[in-house]
Amino acid sequence: MIRPAIVLVRPQLGMNIGMAARAMWNFELDDMRLVAPRDGWPNPDAGPAAAGADRLLSEVRVHADIASALADCTLTFATTVRPRHMDKPVITPREAARRVHEAAAKGQKSAILFGPERSGLSADDLAAIQTIVTCPVNPDFGSLNLAQAVLLIAHEWYQSEARGAVADVAWTPDLEMASHAEVTGFLQQLIADLEAVGYFNVPSRTPATKRMLAQMLTRPEFTSDEVRSWRGIIRALTSRRRP
Amino acid sequence: MIRPAIVLVRPQLGMNIGMAARAMWNFELDDMRLVAPRDGWPNPDAGPAAAGADRLLSEVRVHADIASALADCTLTFATTVRPRHMDKPVITPREAARRVHEAAAKGQKSAILFGPERSGLSADDLAAIQTIVTCPVNPDFGSLNLAQAVLLIAHEWYQSEARGAVADVAWTPDLEMASHAEVTGFLQQLIADLEAVGYFNVPSRTPATKRMLAQMLTRPEFTSDEVRSWRGIIRALTSRRRP
Repeated sequence: MIRPAIVLVRPQLGMNIGMAARAMWNFELDDMRLVAPRDGWPNPDAGPAAAGADRLLSEVRVHADIASALADCTLTFATTVRPRHMDKPVITPREAARRVHEAAAKGQKSAILFGPERSGLSADDLAAIQTIVTCPVNPDFGSLNLAQAVLLIAHEWYQSEARGAVADVAWTPDLEMASHAEVTGFLQQLIADLEAVGYFNVPSRTPATKRMLAQMLTRPEFTSDEVRSWRGIIRALTSRRRP
Repeated sequence: MIRPAIVLVRPQLGMNIGMAARAMWNFELDDMRLVAPRDGWPNPDAGPAAAGADRLLSEVRVHADIASALADCTLTFATTVRPRHMDKPVITPREAARRVHEAAAKGQKSAILFGPERSGLSADDLAAIQTIVTCPVNPDFGSLNLAQAVLLIAHEWYQSEARGAVADVAWTPDLEMASHAEVTGFLQQLIADLEAVGYFNVPSRTPATKRMLAQMLTRPEFTSDEVRSWRGIIRALTSRRRP
């Protein structure tokens, strides 16, 4: 069974990493990835808090950035407390669990991102992710901590009717969807080519423009073939300019 | 709205009582009852752990035994980790949430019992309760702590379809999807630009390649903005070649 990766982005406290591991293993999730943990890795505070889920910690993969953490993943979800206004769908943990299982049944790996304890994920983090997951909570008292958020997501994954069930849709095209690494590679090529032609001519707006490009490439859910074709097209269009 | 009572039976640590209160209020449950708390009540460790859900603690009702705690309740549920053999139905938190809402719609109050941290509810405790609630967890690693068990039950109550309030897809971006004319216009520009750089260099395969391009532009359901951005990008990449 393909299980989703739980990706903790810039986590601060080792204790929270351990408690998140324990929450994952309560529901048989075992693929934890860390992006730039504040205090490095391994962290001596993680083991005691994992309380028996130590195997997950020993198998943790540490990544320098989100792109490398998600390289092999096709579906990407980001958890946020309050959805900011952006062009991403916002779904519940229950619906996310359903989609994760549906993707797994087609051989696709999903990743679910969790932000740092204080600040959550940044707008730049979110730009590269397909779908926002927000747990409905008391609007006057909404603070779930990191391990609790992981617990609810893992519980929904474990409890989902979609786990081991047959989908309602009889047939969908058997498309090989692009992995995050394929989309990221395309994005980097595109940015480099656009830099070469002076596309980013207003420095103050460059970060927003690059975010728009990331958004534009992640939103439509390209197939692997489409990404390859796009790269070929960009290459063909730019090749004449180079000696 | 009639909300279920959360009944902690012989709880040991004030901190756990506080964390359970916080988990309840995360999902708008506010009726906490204690049966024979080990260290009496109030407990100075509870407030700090409640982290803002202090109102629940100030309104807690303390009872000497389970019978008096449940006096006004019609449906009674008891949470256990491993169901022991007894003549009680065993259901999931999700099903329990459904029944609690159904009962509330008929004006009936429910109670959900949680046992002491170490031992859980005794056989005598369970004898007086109608229905057992067990959360499906990893059979090799099933330990949820008290506050986590309360969190899952409260989350299921809040998220239940029977409550009627929560949509699985909370928000989808109000995207203006591209019209067929916009996509076709983009396709024609792209084909013209690719012809100019000799992309269609094998005449016999040109029809198939153009069909692939049409497929590639229609399959992912672009927005109008995305089509405009793509056209701008193609223009930027090709403009240098033209005098």
